[in-house]
Amino acid sequence: MSPGGNASILLTTLQTDEADKMTFQKIDDHCRRLDALGHALAILGVDEATQMAVGGGEARAEAMATLSGMQHCIATAPEIADWIDTAEAESLNDEQKAALREFRRTYLLNTCLPPEFVERQTRTRMRCEQLWRDLRAKNDWAGFQPSLESVVALAREEAAMRADVLKLAPYDAMMEQYDPGNRVADIAPVLEDLKTFLVDFVPKALDVQEQRLARTSLKPLSGIYPVERQRELGLAMMVAVGFDATHGSLSVSHHPFCGGVPTDVRITTRYRTTEFLSSLMGVLHETGHALYEQGLPREWGHWPLGRARGMAMHESQSLFVEKQIGRNPAFWRWALPVVEQHLGESWTLDEILPHVHRVERGLIRVDADEVTYPLHVILRFELEQELIAGRLEVIDLPEAWDARMQAYLGLSTIDNPADGPMQDVHWPSGAFGYFPSYTLGAMIAAQQWAAIESVNPDVSEQFAEGRFDTVNDWRRDHVWRQGSRWSTPELIERSTGEPLNADHFKRHLQKRYGTI
Amino acid sequence: MSPGGNASILLTTLQTDEADKMTFQKIDDHCRRLDALGHALAILGVDEATQMAVGGGEARAEAMATLSGMQHCIATAPEIADWIDTAEAESLNDEQKAALREFRRTYLLNTCLPPEFVERQTRTRMRCEQLWRDLRAKNDWAGFQPSLESVVALAREEAAMRADVLKLAPYDAMMEQYDPGNRVADIAPVLEDLKTFLVDFVPKALDVQEQRLARTSLKPLSGIYPVERQRELGLAMMVAVGFDATHGSLSVSHHPFCGGVPTDVRITTRYRTTEFLSSLMGVLHETGHALYEQGLPREWGHWPLGRARGMAMHESQSLFVEKQIGRNPAFWRWALPVVEQHLGESWTLDEILPHVHRVERGLIRVDADEVTYPLHVILRFELEQELIAGRLEVIDLPEAWDARMQAYLGLSTIDNPADGPMQDVHWPSGAFGYFPSYTLGAMIAAQQWAAIESVNPDVSEQFAEGRFDTVNDWRRDHVWRQGSRWSTPELIERSTGEPLNADHFKRHLQKRYGTI
Repeated sequence: MSPGGNASILLTTLQTDEADKMTFQKIDDHCRRLDALGHALAILGVDEATQMAVGGGEARAEAMATLSGMQHCIATAPEIADWIDTAEAESLNDEQKAALREFRRTYLLNTCLPPEFVERQTRTRMRCEQLWRDLRAKNDWAGFQPSLESVVALAREEAAMRADVLKLAPYDAMMEQYDPGNRVADIAPVLEDLKTFLVDFVPKALDVQEQRLARTSLKPLSGIYPVERQRELGLAMMVAVGFDATHGSLSVSHHPFCGGVPTDVRITTRYRTTEFLSSLMGVLHETGHALYEQGLPREWGHWPLGRARGMAMHESQSLFVEKQIGRNPAFWRWALPVVEQHLGESWTLDEILPHVHRVERGLIRVDADEVTYPLHVILRFELEQELIAGRLEVIDLPEAWDARMQAYLGLSTIDNPADGPMQDVHWPSGAFGYFPSYTLGAMIAAQQWAAIESVNPDVSEQFAEGRFDTVNDWRRDHVWRQGSRWSTPELIERSTGEPLNADHFKRHLQKRYGTI
Repeated sequence: MSPGGNASILLTTLQTDEADKMTFQKIDDHCRRLDALGHALAILGVDEATQMAVGGGEARAEAMATLSGMQHCIATAPEIADWIDTAEAESLNDEQKAALREFRRTYLLNTCLPPEFVERQTRTRMRCEQLWRDLRAKNDWAGFQPSLESVVALAREEAAMRADVLKLAPYDAMMEQYDPGNRVADIAPVLEDLKTFLVDFVPKALDVQEQRLARTSLKPLSGIYPVERQRELGLAMMVAVGFDATHGSLSVSHHPFCGGVPTDVRITTRYRTTEFLSSLMGVLHETGHALYEQGLPREWGHWPLGRARGMAMHESQSLFVEKQIGRNPAFWRWALPVVEQHLGESWTLDEILPHVHRVERGLIRVDADEVTYPLHVILRFELEQELIAGRLEVIDLPEAWDARMQAYLGLSTIDNPADGPMQDVHWPSGAFGYFPSYTLGAMIAAQQWAAIESVNPDVSEQFAEGRFDTVNDWRRDHVWRQGSRWSTPELIERSTGEPLNADHFKRHLQKRYGTI
């Protein structure tokens, strides 16, 4: 048990200055304490990845574990259940009511599982993750399988407990952690629809690509691009698409991420000096996350209500900047001179777009393009539902994975579990219910784009002039400033005027990849 | 009141897994929680000075205030007094006993003042500090005086309360925060002795300097030194004198400092591209602080026992590296080729030493050299004792300051309060009892040097060869590894074999500045 968990925190003791405080105010203070711990953990995490001396890791890990333990201990104090009930009877304005609603939801999520279970599960997950790092490199499924079986067994227990508290089906209860309101009954048909489309569309897109490339010789994406110049280019692009450089920064880390706090969003990337596109696209992707964080309602900042809605919505914002903006041909009419200005090399639109729009069947999800990516996700979404339901056992995963890879992408992983069911860290770390968020994000981004374009038909043309205010104003109003006021499906419908609909994403792909 | 202070933290509630825990173990867990909060605050502080986006300040200040409030609230929980009593009756080993002793001392220090008083004082200090920043620039003593009067009035109250709890004289009780065990009765005669010596010695040292400079023309300390090269030079020197680069780093901030945590010590500096010596000397000074932190007993790291002993001892370690090592002529025989290698410019010993050993009467403490610096400190030490005792009022400060400046350094500040009693942030921020630490540090460093040289007569010669292991081994054993096991005077006597003695510092100055 982490030291943070040993302190029983009594939050109800009446101090002289608290005696006549409204209970809502006590919850408000409590949120500020949790927010301060969250702020510290966020900055410590960024610091670890970007600044920490190599020998500082052990003490840092211990400090962060202790702070997380304290955070959990404070967040789940049993007294808070009564506070919420009492506060609900107080006279509150609409914002306070919304804040209290979302606070109740997070409290319930945080207290679904008994501490003994969380502890047992954390140990099992950590062991499995460590084993995964080792055995994936060795392609050793047999060695890995028993450990993943333990994790899956606990995930089934977890899903059952969450389901019981939340009155949801087990897999829905798992998804509820990432995208509140998302239900298999709603998203499975949409993903099924998309899958049917893609299995047919991927070969077409590859044909189209082949015909395009046949007309011209491909200019290879290679050269010498000093880190400092790529960095300046990335910063220029970030700021152009709306990043507020007074509330964030760009630095280097081994694994690119977007971290920090909404008032100081830290984007990281890594550079290859022989190629500039992958880092630039990574920076644009993380900038999408950053814009969401920077655009959240500052006045709700210490409440759960002030946080981003969930993983799918967050991914929609990163993908919007990467795909709807950054891979839009009109964007590149503006961007190519900027690239030339920073890197001293000029590209034509015909030279760069084949790289920006490259489609390729592959085994690895994180390397996949926007056409094939959803099939990787749908495969996992289908398999993990089966795993949680107990209709599929870990021992049968390699065959089940291979069968679907063959059906969806025409590739086999049967002799290569490292690039099959051992590919991602999600399952070893027990994150079941997370995968759909990636593709839901892609669909939401396309749906938002359609909503914007329907009233601003020239929005792509604006990109060609380096103008991103229309898309940013729309997203600020409809998404960012909404914080966690609505469930994920509610937010989709309120912002775009209709429920999640795969058609927009399908049309996006057809337009970009389906025609010569 | 900060939100962190609103939670009453009950630490005594017996949880099932705590029921049969030794009370010492509960204190140990409690120390880990405080250490984790301290770790977070330290890194957040460094991050603020080196990485934070400009717009992130308000949220950072709020988060840090809340975390500090939580830290104080946890550290001062009333139950802990009983824990300490109970733990003292348990069967503990020597280290645990020492840890408990130091824990009791810090608990007492933390609980000397009622929270309402601390709050009132914090507000008054912050207002005075803000006013000071504004009015010092305008040389407006009349506008500043009433605010400083409020701070002094509260400092007198504070000293009385601390004196009452600690059973000490008021000013001794204030010093106890910075250097445990230091008493006016012990240090005042030593500082008086030093003052008498210096009032006589400063003119002599200036004469000697004049005669030296008359023999040769001074090579000015100017050139073009790119930041990156100065940085590499600083790092090379840091590592050479013992800095462990796997447990720390060097970066840039507006005000140089040494921060972070013992496993990851963050040194900062600032650079002038026209001159390299001031930044290099600053880096060596901060490296001295860093060596102490890096050398603390890691196994006591989460206990107060594992911390550095106090401000005077900390300053002795920074001054040791800056003055005993970094301004030692033998050091420069090794250092000049290193400078040339990094900056591409060669200096002879005769050219660099006049800059390294420059003596000058001046009004500003922080700009003073090692000969005149103690007189600035002694002046403040004398005046602040009078202020705390109520024998001197704020209204009379400008005249009292001027009289002493004239007597000690032959300079007047009567028309220039900005460079007189408005010079330092210490008094506006209520830090009475801190100033002596600076000069005690200089004396302790000289006394340690004498102890080392008495058994290693060739230690200066070792520097000429770039060897610093003898001085570092001695300090590691005698100072760094001792943590907070002994009071300041005990640590001085145990390490050097005698109580604080100004003679060593006087001899150091005579040798370096008193002879042609």
